[in-house]
Amino acid sequence: MTPSGFFVVVEGPEGAGKSTLAAALADRIRLSGVEPVVVREPGGTPVAEAIRRELLDPERHWRPEAELLYFATARADLVHRVVQPALDVGRIVLSDRYALSTEAYQVAGRGLSPDFVGHFNSAATGGLQPNLTLILDIPSDLGEARQRAAGKAQDRLDRESREFHRRVEQYYRSSGGEHIRHLDATLPPEQVLRQAWEELRRARPESFGAFPG
Amino acid sequence: MTPSGFFVVVEGPEGAGKSTLAAALADRIRLSGVEPVVVREPGGTPVAEAIRRELLDPERHWRPEAELLYFATARADLVHRVVQPALDVGRIVLSDRYALSTEAYQVAGRGLSPDFVGHFNSAATGGLQPNLTLILDIPSDLGEARQRAAGKAQDRLDRESREFHRRVEQYYRSSGGEHIRHLDATLPPEQVLRQAWEELRRARPESFGAFPG
Repeated sequence: MTPSGFFVVVEGPEGAGKSTLAAALADRIRLSGVEPVVVREPGGTPVAEAIRRELLDPERHWRPEAELLYFATARADLVHRVVQPALDVGRIVLSDRYALSTEAYQVAGRGLSPDFVGHFNSAATGGLQPNLTLILDIPSDLGEARQRAAGKAQDRLDRESREFHRRVEQYYRSSGGEHIRHLDATLPPEQVLRQAWEELRRARPESFGAFPG
Repeated sequence: MTPSGFFVVVEGPEGAGKSTLAAALADRIRLSGVEPVVVREPGGTPVAEAIRRELLDPERHWRPEAELLYFATARADLVHRVVQPALDVGRIVLSDRYALSTEAYQVAGRGLSPDFVGHFNSAATGGLQPNLTLILDIPSDLGEARQRAAGKAQDRLDRESREFHRRVEQYYRSSGGEHIRHLDATLPPEQVLRQAWEELRRARPESFGAFPG
């Protein structure tokens, strides 16, 4: 019998430390003897990588509806080509961003209607929901300061207005649900990792319950 | 002052002779001293070509909503990168398929709701409408027989049920509007071309009115 897969998503605003946490959590999972499938959005397939290059083009001016369309297609392709096949054979999939990002950026950030955005998210995911979503909460000013300190080249999304980033942050902070956990991203990375690992152990005891925190 | 561009779309079911007409009409336009920008959907940009390869993959099973998403994104990219910039500098753009194809195949063919499909089409086009749409009308059985006779490798869409193709054909046949013209695609190609050229001369007299039919 094939074991059921498990889909973990790391979410949060810019500068919250999503990719740092995703990499550290992947290493922690490997230490327990399980090799996770690690992905990031948008990207991970030929279609999604072509879309990623387009989305990061600083010269391009985006209508919000077009931006929504590109993100949704990149997600659909990643789900179809990578995430769902991995889950089908019982793998642990760890993604840096998923559908909640579209709600935070396109609904709260850009002001598109939740129903309109919902059509695109449902077309993209086919209803596939994460088993665990870890949201990194961080005040948007602090997230921005961290990115500056890290000398990160600012891409298009990073250059959005402060008000935009505040709306995105608030949306993440107020998101809840059975499979959503909030982590305090102002803590040092190793403490954030410890909390994330603890949440994963609780959510998937059959894989990780026997391993120490 | 920049002349206004002109956007011509060739539409119709499989085997109607769209690409034959588009190529012949482009040559006819060149004869009049104007170099048209010729495109086909899906394709024409890195994003859209990646999507085209995915859509033509015979191994892939498609949810109708996902298929809609991919076609819409390919269209958005073509409009943004090729069609709109060409129109902005006064060019004649000739496209093999556009938004009406999505209505014919996804609404009439697959049974998605017109409203749902409308969201994706509007996100893709940003409201850009053709100045002239030439619909090639042909009974679906004849279209299919033509494709077989031409020895065309059947792609995924070609292998759909006869009922599906009949619905698509009927949708095209019943489509109307100020900028839509129907051509009888059962006629020999040179007669179809003559009709198409006549329609184009009437619709764009400032470019082609002085040239003979």
